[in-house]
Amino acid sequence: MALPHAAPGQPVDIRPLGDALRQAASHAILKTHSLELMRIVLREGQELPPHAVRGECTLLCIEGAVRIEQGGSFCELLPCQVVLLPARGEHAVTATKDSSLLLTVQLPPREPGSASSTQ
Amino acid sequence: MALPHAAPGQPVDIRPLGDALRQAASHAILKTHSLELMRIVLREGQELPPHAVRGECTLLCIEGAVRIEQGGSFCELLPCQVVLLPARGEHAVTATKDSSLLLTVQLPPREPGSASSTQ
Repeated sequence: MALPHAAPGQPVDIRPLGDALRQAASHAILKTHSLELMRIVLREGQELPPHAVRGECTLLCIEGAVRIEQGGSFCELLPCQVVLLPARGEHAVTATKDSSLLLTVQLPPREPGSASSTQ
Repeated sequence: MALPHAAPGQPVDIRPLGDALRQAASHAILKTHSLELMRIVLREGQELPPHAVRGECTLLCIEGAVRIEQGGSFCELLPCQVVLLPARGEHAVTATKDSSLLLTVQLPPREPGSASSTQ
């Protein structure tokens, strides 16, 4: 979903989507050289399959519930809970309810030969 | 307030404090080499006076309302709104209601001769 990124100093609404969640898609909120914010929308049963991100992430549950697997450990993330996803650690996220999440990714300096700053 | 930092993979509750806000204090939630999360508690009229942070920050209003000044521009941050505070830009935060906020600070690599990673 192509939405303009927020500018510095411009508040962005991240309230729960409620009934609108069923038609919503994940979208970027803002991106700078060192931080990226996204709203991730996952409907019940949908997942972000196992993947690793170069930078550190936090995941904040806005609504719903997700199950997070990191290195063989599992946790459930409920509304108004935040969790750290360490850099380079592989993690998977599965929605156990219709959910939206605020993902904050710290973008480390590019490594020589790296084509992407986040993967 | 000395609270243990959260470990990676350990969800942390950031729900509104409600009536408990009047006795609450700002506290660290977690800190790694590149990210720091804090809950900032400001009662009506209290402020974080103008200051600059080396890294980029986001500020999420959990409850209450604050007025943010950045470079002569002002915005009001309400519950479920998030705003970017650019690195090195001076900003001030004043609570217009009893408020708690989730502050996420990206910690850039230390500069030679720097004694602190956040200021």
